[in-house]
Amino acid sequence: MIQRSDPIGVFDSGVGGMTVLSALRNRFPGENYVYLGDTARLPYGTKSASTVERYAVNAAGHLTSHGIKLLVVACNTASSYALDALAAAVPVPVVGVVEPGVRAALATGARRIGVIGTEGTIRSNAYQDTLAGRAPLVEVEATACPLLVPLAEEGWGDHPVTDQVARHYLAPLLDWGVQTVILGCTHYPLLKPSLQRVVGPSVELVDSAKAVAQTVAEDHHALISTGDTGGALRIELTDASDRFLRITRAILGRDPERLELVDIDQA
Amino acid sequence: MIQRSDPIGVFDSGVGGMTVLSALRNRFPGENYVYLGDTARLPYGTKSASTVERYAVNAAGHLTSHGIKLLVVACNTASSYALDALAAAVPVPVVGVVEPGVRAALATGARRIGVIGTEGTIRSNAYQDTLAGRAPLVEVEATACPLLVPLAEEGWGDHPVTDQVARHYLAPLLDWGVQTVILGCTHYPLLKPSLQRVVGPSVELVDSAKAVAQTVAEDHHALISTGDTGGALRIELTDASDRFLRITRAILGRDPERLELVDIDQA
Repeated sequence: MIQRSDPIGVFDSGVGGMTVLSALRNRFPGENYVYLGDTARLPYGTKSASTVERYAVNAAGHLTSHGIKLLVVACNTASSYALDALAAAVPVPVVGVVEPGVRAALATGARRIGVIGTEGTIRSNAYQDTLAGRAPLVEVEATACPLLVPLAEEGWGDHPVTDQVARHYLAPLLDWGVQTVILGCTHYPLLKPSLQRVVGPSVELVDSAKAVAQTVAEDHHALISTGDTGGALRIELTDASDRFLRITRAILGRDPERLELVDIDQA
Repeated sequence: MIQRSDPIGVFDSGVGGMTVLSALRNRFPGENYVYLGDTARLPYGTKSASTVERYAVNAAGHLTSHGIKLLVVACNTASSYALDALAAAVPVPVVGVVEPGVRAALATGARRIGVIGTEGTIRSNAYQDTLAGRAPLVEVEATACPLLVPLAEEGWGDHPVTDQVARHYLAPLLDWGVQTVILGCTHYPLLKPSLQRVVGPSVELVDSAKAVAQTVAEDHHALISTGDTGGALRIELTDASDRFLRITRAILGRDPERLELVDIDQA
């Protein structure tokens, strides 16, 4: 029996999904959250569909053991490859990042929408298919940008090298006349200074983090607590190197209050 | 009972270790080889010592089941964090990449040696400690270069962005007067054009791939076949995305003849 006081589970391959977690906490500060980052096996973005699905279902099973009432898949690659498998594997509603990002992009009124993401996300065609299904007349171009996650993790979100790399990836979209670009990876909001400089002020960057919070409010309001149920946050990582802690701090703006190392390999 | 006709096992977190495999095959073309790349769980370089050790021992156990006579750990992070654990876990001699790289660097006669590698390799102090033990008067500076692996995997080994990133990481070493730089990551030989341009012609880049073949010849000649035992190569990956196949092709110079997908998670 799902209770309103149960926590919301948020899952990502790593710590980038904390951009989604932060947007959810801003929108629903009274909720309890359990965040699981599969940092021991990240990244998912370069790996095959079958490996991503196996890892994602394994991680979701672990989150379910915390008695979550809703699973937010804050990872574009897992949302693209494994959302159906996840929905079948867990006994609670599942929200991915693709559908919310598409809704937010269409709300800008753009007729030419670009999508950037990992190789896995772009190759899956999840964004392209969802856009085509919802707005057949909108034109879509999608581009994989493998170097952007490492640049975000290095903390180079506002850096001349990132400008140069972003220009390399985005030039074809800009030549084509893109009006809105979906940031199809939870790390990309960390690169907004460089990305906005490269696309210019007239192109809108759609950040799926806020879009996910909006979708939860629209589609799952019955699950959201009306009062304050604690506002607790538990963060679990499958590997806790200094690197992940540094990035966690950069996204949350402070040290996490409760962080645990978990082993889900054999789960 | 170890036989000379048994294969040599080569292990890496991914496909970068094929630079070591290629050097071994050039030196000992009559040997049989089994290569295991743990591509489903890569990279190791950003992860903690305990996770790297757990994964490496698991992978080595899998290679042992092929009846190998020698285990070459063609991964700097695993060599740095897990060589003792690996030596204890497998019943055959184990060769890592750190000791060979150190020998080759000292052979250049340099008095100021730089080491570049992943965060894990540099933080482990494996190169620094090995150099200090063998040549206490040689000065050593080590720098982690997290963006170089993604740049190598993107195929940007000879690219202005790679020059700019390498300049960022290497400037302190060059100001200090470095004479020889150990490429402490099996991916870095793919970046030699950019790296050599940045350090200039008077600084020597030591590539551990050739150094490993030299160490095998020196320390394990009794295990090396005198005749031709087949020269077969079996490649096993734990994940086989297009990306890894593309990089494999770039390193080997052709398609691999025999490549299999294996699941070692539950081993």
